[in-house]
Amino acid sequence: MTAYEHLTERFARHAALSEAAGMLHWDSSTLMPRGGSDARTEQLTALNLTCHELITASEVGDHLAQADAEQKSGSRPLSDWETANLREMRRLWLHATALPEDLVAAQSRANSHCEMLWREARPAADYAMVLPALKEVLSLSRQEASVKAEALGCSPYDALLDLYEPGGSAAEIDVIFDDIAAFLPDFLEQVLTHQGKQPTPQVPSGPFPIEKQEALGRQLMGAVGFDFDFGRLDVSLHPFCGGVPDDVRITTRYDVDDFAKSLMGVLHETGHALYERGLPQEWRRQPVGTARGMAMHESQSLLIEMQACRSAAFVAFLAPLAKEAFGGQGPTWEADNLIRLYNQVKPDFIRVDADEVTYPAHIILRYRLEKALIAGEMELEDLPAAWNEQMRGLLGLVPPHDGVGCLQDIHWYDGAWGYFPTYSLGAMTAAQLFHAAVAEVPEIPDAIGRGDFSPLMAWLREKVHGLGSLLSTPETIKQATGQTLDPEIFKNHLRQRYLP
Amino acid sequence: MTAYEHLTERFARHAALSEAAGMLHWDSSTLMPRGGSDARTEQLTALNLTCHELITASEVGDHLAQADAEQKSGSRPLSDWETANLREMRRLWLHATALPEDLVAAQSRANSHCEMLWREARPAADYAMVLPALKEVLSLSRQEASVKAEALGCSPYDALLDLYEPGGSAAEIDVIFDDIAAFLPDFLEQVLTHQGKQPTPQVPSGPFPIEKQEALGRQLMGAVGFDFDFGRLDVSLHPFCGGVPDDVRITTRYDVDDFAKSLMGVLHETGHALYERGLPQEWRRQPVGTARGMAMHESQSLLIEMQACRSAAFVAFLAPLAKEAFGGQGPTWEADNLIRLYNQVKPDFIRVDADEVTYPAHIILRYRLEKALIAGEMELEDLPAAWNEQMRGLLGLVPPHDGVGCLQDIHWYDGAWGYFPTYSLGAMTAAQLFHAAVAEVPEIPDAIGRGDFSPLMAWLREKVHGLGSLLSTPETIKQATGQTLDPEIFKNHLRQRYLP
Repeated sequence: MTAYEHLTERFARHAALSEAAGMLHWDSSTLMPRGGSDARTEQLTALNLTCHELITASEVGDHLAQADAEQKSGSRPLSDWETANLREMRRLWLHATALPEDLVAAQSRANSHCEMLWREARPAADYAMVLPALKEVLSLSRQEASVKAEALGCSPYDALLDLYEPGGSAAEIDVIFDDIAAFLPDFLEQVLTHQGKQPTPQVPSGPFPIEKQEALGRQLMGAVGFDFDFGRLDVSLHPFCGGVPDDVRITTRYDVDDFAKSLMGVLHETGHALYERGLPQEWRRQPVGTARGMAMHESQSLLIEMQACRSAAFVAFLAPLAKEAFGGQGPTWEADNLIRLYNQVKPDFIRVDADEVTYPAHIILRYRLEKALIAGEMELEDLPAAWNEQMRGLLGLVPPHDGVGCLQDIHWYDGAWGYFPTYSLGAMTAAQLFHAAVAEVPEIPDAIGRGDFSPLMAWLREKVHGLGSLLSTPETIKQATGQTLDPEIFKNHLRQRYLP
Repeated sequence: MTAYEHLTERFARHAALSEAAGMLHWDSSTLMPRGGSDARTEQLTALNLTCHELITASEVGDHLAQADAEQKSGSRPLSDWETANLREMRRLWLHATALPEDLVAAQSRANSHCEMLWREARPAADYAMVLPALKEVLSLSRQEASVKAEALGCSPYDALLDLYEPGGSAAEIDVIFDDIAAFLPDFLEQVLTHQGKQPTPQVPSGPFPIEKQEALGRQLMGAVGFDFDFGRLDVSLHPFCGGVPDDVRITTRYDVDDFAKSLMGVLHETGHALYERGLPQEWRRQPVGTARGMAMHESQSLLIEMQACRSAAFVAFLAPLAKEAFGGQGPTWEADNLIRLYNQVKPDFIRVDADEVTYPAHIILRYRLEKALIAGEMELEDLPAAWNEQMRGLLGLVPPHDGVGCLQDIHWYDGAWGYFPTYSLGAMTAAQLFHAAVAEVPEIPDAIGRGDFSPLMAWLREKVHGLGSLLSTPETIKQATGQTLDPEIFKNHLRQRYLP
């Protein structure tokens, strides 16, 4: 075997064990009885440790160097896909080997301790309760950022970001987010003024039986392109997309008083699922065959949910189906009302409930704060005040307490710094991809209005899904849309939808 | 760390990864969409390979030798439990290291190829179709038996048996099975004569809605002692007990025309489940903490199903519950009728449908044939004729075709030689344990008649479940019942139940 073949064999085993862990995580979140949690922790720990050892074994560094030498000498020339695969292997290896074992262990303990405290501190709105634990998490994350920055040759913040958005950089994000931050306050005011002149959207009143919500959700998943021979829909407390490309498992949570919450959530997760399903079949369980990063992943869910399924054309298709499913009557169930309802803009404190217009403000705030925290330009004692000040500046609101302020999200308390920007990068990427798809295949909007997602999906399969991690994120976007990420396209989308 | 500690760490990882594989196997059998099977195969292969490497790594042999030396020199004295743990580690190590890698690979291919052909050959009743593949399976199994015999210091057949019944031997089984084989034909005739004088049992007629069957099954599982905080009941094509001790997952299959099939199956699997649940908590994920073998496991399911739940006292408790659950009316639903129905004896061709009296005949037949096949005293060309001849001798029946004869069970076609005797050893062990439990705790039968299994379960926890693999099977039985396995007790049970 050549060095490259040795590596593909090792990474295939690594991927299969990671998939096993992913499936067990899905099981824990959907149907495991509570008594199983200790054993599950042991199973996942053993899997994670084994995966870590597979990548950090001393042969891996040797094989990576040899594979390069084989490629250069011509003794084992690599195709474009293989070259990209080798590049992704090296990235995973750098991340895994950069961290000393004792730092990994300390982070694992500190993060899970802090997360546990956070689960009490958030409902109690008691930041002080979790502050010491969070300081330990941040201190260790700064160490992680510092050693990884050296290994990857980038800034400490970018080193953390790289785990979620490979090759991403704060320098590029700053430009984009500053643009949006400058645009938002004024635009938001215009939208609110415009909305104020429209009839107030009426909310359909329930109860909406769960089995009917589920049936409608499954029907629409099928319309978007979800094949139940290759995946499942289940229930979990926090909706997510798990599983593996050929057995992709999305979850939802039903609210008997509001069917749209689950329905839009299901469509969102279906976007994630179809990305996984469309990843290149011949590169299953190789690094180059995986999704390009969290921003691209979020772009696929938001493309389906925000660009396609909250469009006037799709809501007009949905309205009679929902009306029939739930036996609705009257003007509340007319498309006009539901379009206004599903695109209502309302500044509020909570990110996960935010609409498309105010969502970027929540992200920009978090991004700016975490960047300063990782760089050591700010300390955690100052977080609540800084949070509230940013909220005032971006959305004109000040949280009444930290429970709906800096305590609301799990990410930092679990050591996940550098994740937040991918949400809004994903939203902008979604707008740009959808815009390019429609320009190239003009029948897409009409087809979506008939519940037919196949023209859109064919375009995405070719331009995004089927590429896996062959190209970088900017290269993927540029090849699909003719240009790298341009916030102007996202802003145009917002203008067209919210100031028609 | 001492050598013993190194070993416990390694075997704990091995167990956690095996548990992960077990959970994924449960998932495959219950709810995986069909598209997921290729990825699942990769996941299980990676897990099995990793587990195999953990046990066969060269350090393991060294650590085993060192741990012995530490124990002997007094530098690391071992408790009884630790000594037994070390013994079980050595057994697993011997099994894993005995086989050369190329034999393992050849068996994996041959067994799955043969099993695939068997799935066609059985419904076609075409033994010739699968014969060449089965010859390859047998040839490799003979090689396995031969190398393991050398490693374990026993006969080739005993070496295969040891995987399912640790320490078991054909010499001991021969004595027991010959005794039963001599007893059966005459006893069976008496039972059939006796039954002929009783009223013919009437079969309740359905349909019995699945949700009502499930509700009743869950209610009875709870009565027996199943705690749904530590396990689940689901549906699969072939019922089984999977999962892990603190998250034990049993399955059933519903027949809308016959609720007793699922109900008795659920009670059977509950017996397996409660054994797993009762294994010693402090030895989770160590070899000594696992179930003692397949015969003991089967004894626990048969103790619940056959000894307890088909007893007149329990059926009298069940009858009004079933009558109410399904809205039954008339004498069919009276306890007397159901007792006769659930203890009906009827010689037939199919093992899995056999009653308690004829079941041992099916097993003795298979045991004798597989022993001759492994020893090379018989060849596969002669299997159908030998099968039919044994059936005539033991049950007075000749199968009309091989589909209900030597093709009916998957075991041999999948390379599982040496498994069959554990079913009947389990049945006899169940009778002996139940007899001893009642002798020691006389209120057990009355309590079972009230649906209260707690006195029985307390006895089993102390005498069997909580011992894990501390003692050998004969030692466990002797300590619990005062004597090693004695077929006379099983025969007495049959006499009392079927010739009252």
